Amino acid sequence: MDPWRSAIVDAGPSHIRVRGHDVLELMQKASFTDLVFLLHHERLPSPAERRILDAILIGSADHGAGAPSCAAARLAASGNRQSVSAAVAAGVLTIGDEHGGAGSGCMELIATGLERSQRDGLPLDAVAGGMVDDVKAAKQRLPGFGHRVHSTIDPRVAVIFGLAEEGGLAGDGIRMARALEAALRDRGTPVPLNIDGALAAVLHDMGFPPRMGSLLFIIARVAGISAEVLEEYTREKPMRIKIPVEYDGVAPENV
Amino acid sequence: MDPWRSAIVDAGPSHIRVRGHDVLELMQKASFTDLVFLLHHERLPSPAERRILDAILIGSADHGAGAPSCAAARLAASGNRQSVSAAVAAGVLTIGDEHGGAGSGCMELIATGLERSQRDGLPLDAVAGGMVDDVKAAKQRLPGFGHRVHSTIDPRVAVIFGLAEEGGLAGDGIRMARALEAALRDRGTPVPLNIDGALAAVLHDMGFPPRMGSLLFIIARVAGISAEVLEEYTREKPMRIKIPVEYDGVAPENV
Amino acid sequence: MDPWRSAIVDAGPSHIRVRGHDVLELMQKASFTDLVFLLHHERLPSPAERRILDAILIGSADHGAGAPSCAAARLAASGNRQSVSAAVAAGVLTIGDEHGGAGSGCMELIATGLERSQRDGLPLDAVAGGMVDDVKAAKQRLPGFGHRVHSTIDPRVAVIFGLAEEGGLAGDGIRMARALEAALRDRGTPVPLNIDGALAAVLHDMGFPPRMGSLLFIIARVAGISAEVLEEYTREKPMRIKIPVEYDGVAPENV
Amino acid sequence: MDPWRSAIVDAGPSHIRVRGHDVLELMQKASFTDLVFLLHHERLPSPAERRILDAILIGSADHGAGAPSCAAARLAASGNRQSVSAAVAAGVLTIGDEHGGAGSGCMELIATGLERSQRDGLPLDAVAGGMVDDVKAAKQRLPGFGHRVHSTIDPRVAVIFGLAEEGGLAGDGIRMARALEAALRDRGTPVPLNIDGALAAVLHDMGFPPRMGSLLFIIARVAGISAEVLEEYTREKPMRIKIPVEYDGVAPENV
Repeated sequence: MDPWRSAIVDAGPSHIRVRGHDVLELMQKASFTDLVFLLHHERLPSPAERRILDAILIGSADHGAGAPSCAAARLAASGNRQSVSAAVAAGVLTIGDEHGGAGSGCMELIATGLERSQRDGLPLDAVAGGMVDDVKAAKQRLPGFGHRVHSTIDPRVAVIFGLAEEGGLAGDGIRMARALEAALRDRGTPVPLNIDGALAAVLHDMGFPPRMGSLLFIIARVAGISAEVLEEYTREKPMRIKIPVEYDGVAPENV
Repeated sequence: MDPWRSAIVDAGPSHIRVRGHDVLELMQKASFTDLVFLLHHERLPSPAERRILDAILIGSADHGAGAPSCAAARLAASGNRQSVSAAVAAGVLTIGDEHGGAGSGCMELIATGLERSQRDGLPLDAVAGGMVDDVKAAKQRLPGFGHRVHSTIDPRVAVIFGLAEEGGLAGDGIRMARALEAALRDRGTPVPLNIDGALAAVLHDMGFPPRMGSLLFIIARVAGISAEVLEEYTREKPMRIKIPVEYDGVAPENV
Repeated sequence: MDPWRSAIVDAGPSHIRVRGHDVLELMQKASFTDLVFLLHHERLPSPAERRILDAILIGSADHGAGAPSCAAARLAASGNRQSVSAAVAAGVLTIGDEHGGAGSGCMELIATGLERSQRDGLPLDAVAGGMVDDVKAAKQRLPGFGHRVHSTIDPRVAVIFGLAEEGGLAGDGIRMARALEAALRDRGTPVPLNIDGALAAVLHDMGFPPRMGSLLFIIARVAGISAEVLEEYTREKPMRIKIPVEYDGVAPENV
Repeated sequence: MDPWRSAIVDAGPSHIRVRGHDVLELMQKASFTDLVFLLHHERLPSPAERRILDAILIGSADHGAGAPSCAAARLAASGNRQSVSAAVAAGVLTIGDEHGGAGSGCMELIATGLERSQRDGLPLDAVAGGMVDDVKAAKQRLPGFGHRVHSTIDPRVAVIFGLAEEGGLAGDGIRMARALEAALRDRGTPVPLNIDGALAAVLHDMGFPPRMGSLLFIIARVAGISAEVLEEYTREKPMRIKIPVEYDGVAPENV
């Protein structure tokens, strides 16, 4: 088998380097958030980029034991006490298009809008209007806008955008997201950017590809899942969790 | 990298063979249960062995959506609609020492007891008595005996042992399991063999190693998990599952 | 939390029933393949349906340790000896659109073609021609046709279709698949149905929904993954697997 | 179903708090490493504790695409392009006793040694000598000491211990680890503390329970796995990975 090729880590017998940076030096000077940036971006972040990435990771890490990611991890920790990694992985597997995936969906939307504006020489509000019209015609929803439960604005959005402003990082991504928000409002659907949309806009402006939305959510959420698994192991008895179920299928006499 | 070596499958450009048997012939004549046996055992089963293996696989496949294995799979299907394999894997990960793992634990117990009897020239009831005394002194439980909820005998046990008798397969494994059951009763703990213990005894008598207890449970349960995942995808909305949680940790004012 | 509702299993204190069938009776009379059918279909299979389902499960169970599903499971068994379920799950997770997923893709194609024929009152060959034209215009491939490596016909295809003919099960699914194959040939792309396409056609004719293609592959492949994991545990040392990698990224001096 | 109880996160309609700390404030002031500490420890870290935790997370995040964790994730990304979480989870599942688990094993060793010293009123070197004698008699190895490949000292060990000294965090954990190292040397087995042993000692001194060794490795490694998955998706074709295998089992003529 030919060796695989990779541009991320060079681990020789006497050194480990991440994208050319010596790990021993990073261990002494950098933060883990710096390394998350470097692993996915080819350079270290600026202080403003680090601050926003910390905010995103902190805001996504854990919303409680009842979220699908943490609940599935606790179910695995309840039945399988042999391996903490099995429980963490069970939690990770609940993360997808419907849970933690809206950031990636919105990043694709933003990238598409900006490409269209560039290609057709149209202003962002015209592009955004067309995209919203298409989505409304197809009776779909825009990922990153609105909320399953709340109609008010998620306060984490203001924090993320505030940090982007302060750090001088607001760019085309945030402009495109705002244009989509305005187009929704103008067309009678005043659904604000939610936290997934906010971080999508900012991640775009920091130069990350769309899949980074889901990957960052996973990196963040694994910290919360890990804490939930540790609590399940130390505080609860195995197999304590029983979900109540009612059978409503075919009756024995009708088989 | 040197090639890996394996004695299971030979897949050449013009053939696929499982332990020397041509897959095209197996596809036309054998059952999937035969193949499960062959993959793990180096030969095809006798009709009696096939009958028991079918019974074990059917008896373990699904006990309802609320079991940890199926519930975790449904949580993953609820949050991540991108990949059915992610949902199935989340279910598999709940299977371990506490859920589906007692069969392996009891197979190790049986193997240990039989080795001890052989090595020390002791009858099975003497060995079993010593093992039960040890376990009671350590305030532990014997895997494969008793039930978390019921005190009555699981009717699946009678079916498994009946098939083993009919098929002439009952051997040292069942004898050792019965000796342990008798020793428990004689020492004032009348806990009967449960379904995990019954299948452990029979799997031992068919020549499988202890890990086969857990692996067979996984093979069987994946069929049930798959059906639960299909129902979740087709019948339920994404993110419908919310587990209620109460916070009982440190209050904000005490931070 | 309200109870979940499910039409698959009714597990009461004194009974377990799968879609109304008593598990104790199934354990004595049915095969595991019957149960796989029943769990996903609401009834037991006919003898001809059982024969084909056995053939599909046997033909998909294992193609050797080097396939992504089995290789990933062995990597997990090599690093994590605490939990066989972790290793099996790692193998399952490699199954998707590119590995084991073409059956589901082809089932969607067949269902789409038949709906279009029904809706527009067109014969199957006209519909198939249009679909192939669309796919060729988009420079895409039809899932279930052709092979990554071989240009010859997979002999498993003949076995599957032979069993369908013998059993009187060949229906619209096989007709639609054959129409697509002919349309490809007529348009200068003579790629035959592969094994994924053959099982897609037959599963459609047995009444299964498209997702069943992937789910059946998972059920089948878990048997092979399990055998590979057992061999890795019993025959190999932990951490034996090292994949050779060459770094081709930025050099330290260019950081 | 009664609500679950948890002391980690309180997520109400208008707030999210981690162990009493407001998430909006943490997003603006704390680092992700602070949050990892807080989620598992009930308080925020001191600056010295944050520095060491950053060093541990950075030093464990990625050692290259060929490590089992990253290789399994790439295999999953190669076969299943539908879900990045499936690929990340496949990587996590390789982490266990043999890969990334030595930290937890060494933390248990340290905790056992310190309890024994306390209980029996013995100095650490006497306890360490007894523990090493026991392990050598059982022909086992001490987790956290020595290296599979290198006989020289891992330079990351010096960095971790240097930071612990600087930060005034060195305590009983490091003393116990050093006593074990000395006992090994005095008994003719001069195997130094490795990186797993170093972080085990320091994590003990920061007040974490033994399972934290594995959990921190998982949190760190998920960042590297994520980067490897992103590279596999963006740079490689699906199904490019084929592991070479040689069949050495029973021949067809001997079946």
